[in-house]
Amino acid sequence: MMINYPNGKKGSNTVVVKSSGHRGMNLENDLNLSNEYYRQLDRAIIYKKPTPIQIVHVDYPKRTAAKIDEAYFKIPSTTDYNGIYRGRYLDFEAKETASRTSFPFSSIHPHQIRHLQDVLRHGAIAFVIIRFKEYEETFFVEAEKIVCAYQDKERRSLPHSWFKKEGILIPLSLTPPVNYLKVVDELYFKGE
Amino acid sequence: MMINYPNGKKGSNTVVVKSSGHRGMNLENDLNLSNEYYRQLDRAIIYKKPTPIQIVHVDYPKRTAAKIDEAYFKIPSTTDYNGIYRGRYLDFEAKETASRTSFPFSSIHPHQIRHLQDVLRHGAIAFVIIRFKEYEETFFVEAEKIVCAYQDKERRSLPHSWFKKEGILIPLSLTPPVNYLKVVDELYFKGE
Repeated sequence: MMINYPNGKKGSNTVVVKSSGHRGMNLENDLNLSNEYYRQLDRAIIYKKPTPIQIVHVDYPKRTAAKIDEAYFKIPSTTDYNGIYRGRYLDFEAKETASRTSFPFSSIHPHQIRHLQDVLRHGAIAFVIIRFKEYEETFFVEAEKIVCAYQDKERRSLPHSWFKKEGILIPLSLTPPVNYLKVVDELYFKGE
Repeated sequence: MMINYPNGKKGSNTVVVKSSGHRGMNLENDLNLSNEYYRQLDRAIIYKKPTPIQIVHVDYPKRTAAKIDEAYFKIPSTTDYNGIYRGRYLDFEAKETASRTSFPFSSIHPHQIRHLQDVLRHGAIAFVIIRFKEYEETFFVEAEKIVCAYQDKERRSLPHSWFKKEGILIPLSLTPPVNYLKVVDELYFKGE
């Protein structure tokens, strides 16, 4: 499948060619593009937070930029994305899985679940976006539902069928690649 | 000056001894402690974002954690702190200066000023916290005022006297070290 990028804000020279729809584009990339699109239209100010890193050593060579030569990935205390939309604080986590059958709980850190509970209690719009890569399906799930499922001690994962029932399928498009604010509008601003 | 940490949430074994008030504690540290304090009391959910880093190379040794062995600091696109307070999206940048006379504009990146404008337009509570280390003074300045000052092309810095006039001095305390939410209450929730 060949797709031409519509003539838009990027200028007429930009042509994006994809071999199979969204296959190959990862969720983080799609969300970064979506957030950039929302910012360009001034619809929402939402960013991915930088990856948390423990810096152990930095080298400061003369005349060149400081080089971090020893650092390690840290477990995040919060979700990856937050910002402001229609005057409300918005917060979410996004994950993709290669599984065809289920989404493992181990993909989301306990800290992140606790953070979703925290911001919900304070009045946030909070949710998770889960992509099943094999099906090219991207689901929007309200944070309340994920938090509740995680509290069920018997579970270690959520089956694909759970997302079909409890989640909302986000239609894939080009601009933006993942139009999750459409779902936010329907769920949180109905009738406004 | 010797200060005993009051018996509080940290347990009675915790005693913090400081030789000269807050001298030596940096602003980032004070704000991290303040945000942790607010979270413990469930007053607000506010975090510092991780430092943005461009990872160039990661080594994956067997049986040990992945080691980042080449990375560089990136210019931040947004402010360092955000979160939710009293149901509102809150966003701020914090900087300290060793100068006795003025705060240089170059300390805050143009991206960060633009970000403050962006979130203000969307209804955020937005501000900056500026510390003059030599005076042990920490000022709260509404984002509108900083944005306006930055737009004055004649200026390259803001004198200390500007902060005394336009800012609000945040009283230093121990719990939390920088009680900026007290100022937020007065400015944005007056009479509620």
